[in-house]
Amino acid sequence: MIEALRCLPGVGQKSAQRMAYHLLERDRDGARRLGERLAEAMEKVGHCTRCRDFSQAELCAICASPTRDAALLCAVESPADRLAIEQATGYRGLYFVLQGRLSPLDGIGPRELGLERLAARLAEGTVRELIIATNPTVEGEATAHYLAQLARQRKVQPSRIAHGVPLGGELEYIDRGTLSHAFGSRSEVPN
Amino acid sequence: MIEALRCLPGVGQKSAQRMAYHLLERDRDGARRLGERLAEAMEKVGHCTRCRDFSQAELCAICASPTRDAALLCAVESPADRLAIEQATGYRGLYFVLQGRLSPLDGIGPRELGLERLAARLAEGTVRELIIATNPTVEGEATAHYLAQLARQRKVQPSRIAHGVPLGGELEYIDRGTLSHAFGSRSEVPN
Repeated sequence: MIEALRCLPGVGQKSAQRMAYHLLERDRDGARRLGERLAEAMEKVGHCTRCRDFSQAELCAICASPTRDAALLCAVESPADRLAIEQATGYRGLYFVLQGRLSPLDGIGPRELGLERLAARLAEGTVRELIIATNPTVEGEATAHYLAQLARQRKVQPSRIAHGVPLGGELEYIDRGTLSHAFGSRSEVPN
Repeated sequence: MIEALRCLPGVGQKSAQRMAYHLLERDRDGARRLGERLAEAMEKVGHCTRCRDFSQAELCAICASPTRDAALLCAVESPADRLAIEQATGYRGLYFVLQGRLSPLDGIGPRELGLERLAARLAEGTVRELIIATNPTVEGEATAHYLAQLARQRKVQPSRIAHGVPLGGELEYIDRGTLSHAFGSRSEVPN
């Protein structure tokens, strides 16, 4: 059981022991419930066939919703990124979850990210703008570049979320790359 | 001496004691030199009459340089911000150092930031673009807004450095405000 608990992220030998003793001594019911839920989730949760996010049903709740704007599609690297955008913004369009980023050295190419499915979707003609929200890391940028090409070839306008100084940040403490980028991509202040 | 050392930022009673004993026991020459340099700097370093940055001469090295582009003026809050931009970017224009930001509650208004001098400079007709690089905090944004108006009234184009997800950042760990802003100010990917 201790060995098994170590599959949880951030849990090492010590934490696993503490958890195991806690459950055995104080919360056998909770542990039983957790066991059942884990088995159930591993059994039932698959991927949405449309956006590749985790979902119990064939279509996830967002893809199945009739009130979302199908003309906007936002590509993110992970389900956690999708959740962050959903919570932070008032975005009412749809998503495509890559479940990774292009990384040839790790054997992750367009096929692993389901890009043929994304390409087919862009070719349908419903999507007007592909909002590329991959992370501003080297691999994320390479992925963004690839996605932009993919969209343009299918007459869909690609756009990229803004990068620069984070709100509340101080110029003095920002890394050089970000500051240089923020300076270079300055924009005219509208009236 | 220990009391006096505590004027240094981040130095409390304990650190001041350690510094004092170190200097007395091991580095009396260094301490003497430091004393002289401090006295000299406090005596000689004033403000550049043109950009308000610290300077020993009437004009700082940047304002006095004939190779900088006088059509670009970048407004920053502090000398540290100016240094950060100078080190991170290839910017070849001039600066205006506000030495603060608008903060009516602390009694810091346009006069304390030398804005009448900035206004006069913008009215000269040499400056084409005012790059506003105040911090993306509430007060920094208020200052940016004020500066943009100031520039526009004098027919100078105001621009603002980009804000958004910092390079290398992960969407999942970005604060909501920044993510929401980054999403809202997304831009079309150029060909």
